[in-house]
Amino acid sequence: MKLYYGPGACSMGIHVILEEIGKPYALEPVALKDGAQHQPAYKAVNPKSKVPALAREGRPILTEWPAIAFCLATSSPEAGLWPKDPEEQVRALEVMDYVAGTIHAQGFTRMFRPANFAPGEADLDKVKAQGRANAEKGFAIIDQQWQGGDWVLPSGYSVADAALFFVEYWAAKRAGVPLPPRLAAHFERMLARPAVRRALEQEGLSA
Amino acid sequence: MKLYYGPGACSMGIHVILEEIGKPYALEPVALKDGAQHQPAYKAVNPKSKVPALAREGRPILTEWPAIAFCLATSSPEAGLWPKDPEEQVRALEVMDYVAGTIHAQGFTRMFRPANFAPGEADLDKVKAQGRANAEKGFAIIDQQWQGGDWVLPSGYSVADAALFFVEYWAAKRAGVPLPPRLAAHFERMLARPAVRRALEQEGLSA
Repeated sequence: MKLYYGPGACSMGIHVILEEIGKPYALEPVALKDGAQHQPAYKAVNPKSKVPALAREGRPILTEWPAIAFCLATSSPEAGLWPKDPEEQVRALEVMDYVAGTIHAQGFTRMFRPANFAPGEADLDKVKAQGRANAEKGFAIIDQQWQGGDWVLPSGYSVADAALFFVEYWAAKRAGVPLPPRLAAHFERMLARPAVRRALEQEGLSA
Repeated sequence: MKLYYGPGACSMGIHVILEEIGKPYALEPVALKDGAQHQPAYKAVNPKSKVPALAREGRPILTEWPAIAFCLATSSPEAGLWPKDPEEQVRALEVMDYVAGTIHAQGFTRMFRPANFAPGEADLDKVKAQGRANAEKGFAIIDQQWQGGDWVLPSGYSVADAALFFVEYWAAKRAGVPLPPRLAAHFERMLARPAVRRALEQEGLSA
């Protein structure tokens, strides 16, 4: 099993899940800043030109954050990362999809890559401001709808926490987006997990 | 159970799933064109200001296309909309996430609501063109990676087909985006399904 990742990209959440599970895997960095994801070598791996992508023995490449997380968590049930309760499974997917599809793709992507949204140089600051507003709204909604205690789901730690972690990391360490108190405390709990510390260290990132 | 939907919006895919399952449910239209999703009445239902949203007896509102589809399909296993094979479950999620997060949100949303991307009037045509290119790339990738026969998954019809259907509908009926032959044939098979015809008719759309 091999994870294609960019250091500090959303793939860090999948990296955390792999470290939580603890089975052997390989890491393959993709130089996103140099545009390696758009070069033929990587497009032959993943024509979507995105990370994370998961290579598995004898199977086609697997992409899409929630699908990779679901695959890893359900195929290693002993790690306890996929809730047993059907309603909590639904909520885990809901959180992962909201983080990946909205907080990341409509929020932070506008802040980190505004030119992907607005062709005009003059508009880049407006795009970044909209991204910040979208991310803040997303964090506020997760905070208001919080059903869990220490973790996102009432039943405990799950893949949904690893999803929330990577956008919390961007907010706190990269973009200066304020986290609501419940999410700030969740982020600290994540940083204290050995699997999270290993993943960050392997990606050359500060905890 | 009640589905909040916009006629012709991505919620039509969830509407199809409800018709396939055939259990009683109610439909509640949200006037997206008038901005009703941003008004207090709807924000009290779904603060994300989006459709689809699914109200269920005694439970908080459920949002996010793939999570709603997973919930409906797994809670009505007799309808056969959720594959039994674990690898096919992963692939179903991968397709739903790619359709919702990329083909819809990075493709058609740029075509239908370009001002959400670029603040400058002069850039709207460029944004629409980028959206069209993103949608075409998305359809091409699904076509190239097609593992199934008549339906997206080898094991047969599933919620993944309902996801692909709503972007195929937009391509064929609304945006004039060409579908690769395999997807054009899939779209015709979808239109022939009684559940699809009922959903379209209830939304006032042509088949």
